[in-house]
Amino acid sequence: MLPPPVEMAKCPTGLGAADRARLDFLYEQLQRQLRTFVGYPCTAGFDYSDLFRFLALPLNNVGDPFTRCTIQMHTRAIEREVLEWFAALYHAPAGEWWGYVTNGGTEGNMYGLYLARELYPQGIVYYSQDTHYSVSKNLRMLRMQHIMLKSQPHGELDYDDLRETLRLHRDTPPILFANIGTTMREAHDDVGRIHAILRELAIPEFYIHADAALCGMTLPFVEGAPRFDFRAGVHSLSVSGHKFIGAPIPCGVVLALKRHVDRVARSVEYVGTLDTTVTGSRNGFTPLILWHALRTHGREGFARAVGACLARAEYAVAAFRRRGIAAWRNPHAITVVLPRPAPAVLAKWQIAVHECVGHILIMPHITTAQIDELVDDCAAHPA
Amino acid sequence: MLPPPVEMAKCPTGLGAADRARLDFLYEQLQRQLRTFVGYPCTAGFDYSDLFRFLALPLNNVGDPFTRCTIQMHTRAIEREVLEWFAALYHAPAGEWWGYVTNGGTEGNMYGLYLARELYPQGIVYYSQDTHYSVSKNLRMLRMQHIMLKSQPHGELDYDDLRETLRLHRDTPPILFANIGTTMREAHDDVGRIHAILRELAIPEFYIHADAALCGMTLPFVEGAPRFDFRAGVHSLSVSGHKFIGAPIPCGVVLALKRHVDRVARSVEYVGTLDTTVTGSRNGFTPLILWHALRTHGREGFARAVGACLARAEYAVAAFRRRGIAAWRNPHAITVVLPRPAPAVLAKWQIAVHECVGHILIMPHITTAQIDELVDDCAAHPA
Repeated sequence: MLPPPVEMAKCPTGLGAADRARLDFLYEQLQRQLRTFVGYPCTAGFDYSDLFRFLALPLNNVGDPFTRCTIQMHTRAIEREVLEWFAALYHAPAGEWWGYVTNGGTEGNMYGLYLARELYPQGIVYYSQDTHYSVSKNLRMLRMQHIMLKSQPHGELDYDDLRETLRLHRDTPPILFANIGTTMREAHDDVGRIHAILRELAIPEFYIHADAALCGMTLPFVEGAPRFDFRAGVHSLSVSGHKFIGAPIPCGVVLALKRHVDRVARSVEYVGTLDTTVTGSRNGFTPLILWHALRTHGREGFARAVGACLARAEYAVAAFRRRGIAAWRNPHAITVVLPRPAPAVLAKWQIAVHECVGHILIMPHITTAQIDELVDDCAAHPA
Repeated sequence: MLPPPVEMAKCPTGLGAADRARLDFLYEQLQRQLRTFVGYPCTAGFDYSDLFRFLALPLNNVGDPFTRCTIQMHTRAIEREVLEWFAALYHAPAGEWWGYVTNGGTEGNMYGLYLARELYPQGIVYYSQDTHYSVSKNLRMLRMQHIMLKSQPHGELDYDDLRETLRLHRDTPPILFANIGTTMREAHDDVGRIHAILRELAIPEFYIHADAALCGMTLPFVEGAPRFDFRAGVHSLSVSGHKFIGAPIPCGVVLALKRHVDRVARSVEYVGTLDTTVTGSRNGFTPLILWHALRTHGREGFARAVGACLARAEYAVAAFRRRGIAAWRNPHAITVVLPRPAPAVLAKWQIAVHECVGHILIMPHITTAQIDELVDDCAAHPA
């Protein structure tokens, strides 16, 4: 005799009234907060409702997006299209690149550093003092030797410091972490100059990773902007999906030269696929989000959006300066750097500050009305 | 004169007809695949549509969920309630624990191992050969010394091997990685016996991390099940959200003793918060999903679901055995272990295999009709 079957009872009630009210309150609160969310590189105002039905499914893109997998609840074909779009944008050599959709820029940077470490286990990582705070955490987790370099006042790597420091360590392969651009000032480290210095010092073995979290989606659409991608000689590159593109969930893309990835790949029978990523189970919904954005806007749409953001950033700099506030921005940057605003301004606006500076980011959803209001507030409360 | 304002144009068209058809096709394909998705520990059949409106917002729970943050687009209050629910479930000592919502079990395990390494930089990690494949990847990334131990045939750690191996390395603090339960056979390593062996060998300094990816949501609801949590003496614990609970996006919870976390915390002015997590930007949507599930089902709902799954797992074992197939399961397990099924069965059903065994998981959405059909298929195609 078989035991009697016992099926799962559907939850009879769902959320209670108090919980529903709680969610309503949170939602309204978040919508209000959006008005003053001007200091971080996150686009708002997106609409991915076409995709919500997929959230009824246990999606999982576990392992390598380019290989077969026993688990069929995935969106790997969509993920591969997203990766191919970015590979073309960044001039990755055909057939020689690999990548995956990450949980954000930190994971992409960690992956690039991990590949570099597997190539040069004793390599020293060089990165400027303007590098995102998560990188030193990554280096600590990965137990990598590292040297922080000086930055120039506008945020770009100090190449003299790089040259002199490399000269002292010519016995150890350098791993160069290039910011495209930096967190506070959106300065771009020049991959071409880094290569020139490596040539000048006759250093044959090195690895360059580009952290293009924000500018990976702006510079390719700006005429005359510096090159930072595979064509410029990087070995891996990380870009965020929730920054310029805009997403409700942090995500990103990491791309790398395939020959370095093969070094860390290992086959896992349990899921019937190669395991080449940092995480195990992987988000199958964020590839849909990125695909939706790329298909909806296309290169032309992003080019228009970047152009409009640069124009409003110029508008913001001029508006601040007219009121005597020494705002400025780097070339091709949508980040407007300010003297650190007064506490009253910081209490109202969500503005990132670091020591004596603050910044705002003119993302696609930031309006001139918001800029005008912020300028008025800063003028009314001098720093 | 200010430059003229240039606002972002709304995308005029949205997705094209071909792209919409592509999404329709993918959605239908995934729904069909769900019928044969019996070999992985992922619950399906959830409904989080109450939360979809939050996907119009750029949510980001960056940094430490327990501290203040400049960025206001977060769901940290909800995340803290989720963490408190799990802390109570796992008997974390009041006021002495910390945690966050992760991107899945791998991140939680990595975090536990990272804390252990910061406490014992030269510590050796001990883990059984039945441990999930992602752990050796974690150990490689973290550059930690490690020794793989033997397992018993049913999947549980071989305690004699543990004792003898520890005895040879009494000069180095051990870091014990306990499976609650193992990937293929859902066996539980006994935290009490591990403690007894450490006492027996007079080892004063050690760290125990519990990987409770699946069973963290089953054992607490089973009368007489082994203890594996803070009450049993673990220092950190990782549980998955997309496994027994069910979620469209991989997620999980990691909890740890606060005194070990304080060692890795560092303050980051840029986001105005402490950065104690593995990632930088963090998912603000998955805490809502977990909160919704916990509020909807409650402990009672999960207890009922676990009881029903265990009853159906027993039903499945009996059904296989009646047809001469040597299925079995560990005590309190919803995993039914089978001889590796024939290729024809594996071509139809998404079943995890490893060497000579296969397994199915009787998750809440798996019906007896699915079990009956699979048993028929296995009987028709002997392994």
